[in-house]
Amino acid sequence: MWRAWQFALGLRQSYLKRKIMPSTESQPWYVLNNPDEIASPALLIYPHRVEKNIQSLIAMAGDIGRLRPHVKTHKLPQVVAMHQAHGIQKMKCATIAEAEMLAQTGVKDILLAYQPVGPTQQRLITLAQRYPNSQFGCLIDNERTLRELSAKLEGADVRLNVWIDIDNGNGRTGIQPGAGAANLAKLISDTPGVRFAGLHVYDGQFGRLGIAARTAAANEAFAPVQMLVESLAADDVDVPNVVAGGSPTFPVHAQRATVDLSPGTYSLWDVGYATACPEQPFIWAAVLLVRVISQPAPNRLCLDLGHKAVAAENPLEKRVHFLNAPEARFISQNEEHLVIELPADHGFAVGDVLYGIPGHICPTVALHQEANVIDEEGKFVACWPIAARARRLEI
Amino acid sequence: MWRAWQFALGLRQSYLKRKIMPSTESQPWYVLNNPDEIASPALLIYPHRVEKNIQSLIAMAGDIGRLRPHVKTHKLPQVVAMHQAHGIQKMKCATIAEAEMLAQTGVKDILLAYQPVGPTQQRLITLAQRYPNSQFGCLIDNERTLRELSAKLEGADVRLNVWIDIDNGNGRTGIQPGAGAANLAKLISDTPGVRFAGLHVYDGQFGRLGIAARTAAANEAFAPVQMLVESLAADDVDVPNVVAGGSPTFPVHAQRATVDLSPGTYSLWDVGYATACPEQPFIWAAVLLVRVISQPAPNRLCLDLGHKAVAAENPLEKRVHFLNAPEARFISQNEEHLVIELPADHGFAVGDVLYGIPGHICPTVALHQEANVIDEEGKFVACWPIAARARRLEI
Repeated sequence: MWRAWQFALGLRQSYLKRKIMPSTESQPWYVLNNPDEIASPALLIYPHRVEKNIQSLIAMAGDIGRLRPHVKTHKLPQVVAMHQAHGIQKMKCATIAEAEMLAQTGVKDILLAYQPVGPTQQRLITLAQRYPNSQFGCLIDNERTLRELSAKLEGADVRLNVWIDIDNGNGRTGIQPGAGAANLAKLISDTPGVRFAGLHVYDGQFGRLGIAARTAAANEAFAPVQMLVESLAADDVDVPNVVAGGSPTFPVHAQRATVDLSPGTYSLWDVGYATACPEQPFIWAAVLLVRVISQPAPNRLCLDLGHKAVAAENPLEKRVHFLNAPEARFISQNEEHLVIELPADHGFAVGDVLYGIPGHICPTVALHQEANVIDEEGKFVACWPIAARARRLEI
Repeated sequence: MWRAWQFALGLRQSYLKRKIMPSTESQPWYVLNNPDEIASPALLIYPHRVEKNIQSLIAMAGDIGRLRPHVKTHKLPQVVAMHQAHGIQKMKCATIAEAEMLAQTGVKDILLAYQPVGPTQQRLITLAQRYPNSQFGCLIDNERTLRELSAKLEGADVRLNVWIDIDNGNGRTGIQPGAGAANLAKLISDTPGVRFAGLHVYDGQFGRLGIAARTAAANEAFAPVQMLVESLAADDVDVPNVVAGGSPTFPVHAQRATVDLSPGTYSLWDVGYATACPEQPFIWAAVLLVRVISQPAPNRLCLDLGHKAVAAENPLEKRVHFLNAPEARFISQNEEHLVIELPADHGFAVGDVLYGIPGHICPTVALHQEANVIDEEGKFVACWPIAARARRLEI
């Protein structure tokens, strides 16, 4: 909480300062006044822009009680605290370290959106024991894993929420919304140590469709899920909760009053989702600060942005977009080098700063040990360690 | 040094134990006796296999005085210490954090194979001041950066080695081996605060050629470098040292008695280089331990190896090779999920362990906070933090 207060105080001071000394409006939003204080490559975060994204999300959901944001994007307790300041108490995560960060930040309801196997089962139970003020949950998609988890919970004196992981066409994880899922729901309801919390439905397969086709596809794929809920109700099995959608489809599921929403990327946003989901209102709130380290030919620059500093699972030309060099052509990338070419009049020299928006922000954040916090005046004011980039904190 | 001793002691104990209790030879080299102790996804390192790779490298170089291994692959002080135990005192690195790790480990001669710009210039100078028992150096390819560095060195009471970064066809960084490079060498020799240490030649452009074509191409591209050395000598400018080649071409440059060699990947090796350079004698010494987290269809498995845990700059099918599931077909990958398909009789169930060799080990190591150390009996015995995966240690 100390961190959250410290941060809230910072925002207040920043606001007061701006009222007294309005900044010149000539400088683009991403440009720093003091870039020389930041070694590159560096991740910059603009909390006032994160705050706008949180407000947009709340407006889209209508009711904060329906929000269960995914924290894998930012992995930052300070950003979690910004959500808590709005009353958001439910969060979703993908790793035990992220779950532990959430518990440390005082989040009340934590869903590990992952089926725990191996040592992860005991780690989740240990977390629940260590943080009794938080309720923990996870996904299950088969009987064997459920029984393993229940056996480990015997005598542990904690109870885990269990959502059934439903595969409604994504083909990545889960069980199809049919008789097997219904039987699993009944089995969970009868299994000691766990509580049947509902269904988890991730329909990432529609991420590349335009909004109209995406809406139609997500609705069609959701129909069997709705049927499963109704058939369970007819069998006197209440489905307390459904969590559905990721970034591309959560606005579709927002139309269903009984569904919880769990997007993640909205908090920082990136080029990938800005391109795929142009209808969404989010703004870029994270930037890569990089420098020219060599100019091997007049129109060619080498930057210190290798694929150890920006997510690389997409083709080279989709990994980063330079705000102050949008015409860059991408030539090659290595671990600590990115080679681009620019028109002859580019004007950049060795040592100059470029500002880039990552193609995919979530894995990019995980490549950095800290976020450099930039205030509304374009000033670098603090470092936030990316707390949950590690896979193991204490537990 | 304490760590190095502790490790040496461990190897000795391990050796004695094996003499007394020989392990069964039935189990493949990568399989653990105690996988249940390791949460996945995890990076495993087998130091006895790293040691074999170091020995192979020394045999190829002929003389340890010619070796300047690149530490970006492992980022581990324990592996640095294994090299020091053989008398290797010169190392190469790509970041200030790696340089600091090397200084902390007592390496005598440290080359930051990077042209320092922005705050990196002062950080390098601060390192040199903080660690007077190590000699630091860096690359320079232009007059402006040289003058910046020299100005910052004024009154700093340290002297940096400077290698000219030569671009002999790679087109990534550096200056071409011609009159401009010769003038830069003379300028460096006359510039206060720095010492002209020689030429740095990275010819990564030949990495995809077979050994015969690679040898011919690397030799042809090196000819202008040799001419530059000779023309400087004729002008009474001694070129004290040439560092040439990366993993693919260092065996070619090993034929030149006056050239230092600086490969990196040999220490852990990976599928990419085992495929590109099958003539090289190195063995895999790092493995990813992952688990099945879901089986959404009978022949389809989802593993906990997303691209937050294995380097993803290569196409999906080249990111990992599973030693105990070599027939895997790669379907999709997300941040924390990898979907594969196997023949119907695969026999894997949710929770089972797969062992994978990364396509590219260097960026994979940087995705993990620690290496799980496996001894010769296949036992997990220690955790080594990936010390230099951070970009900032103390300085």
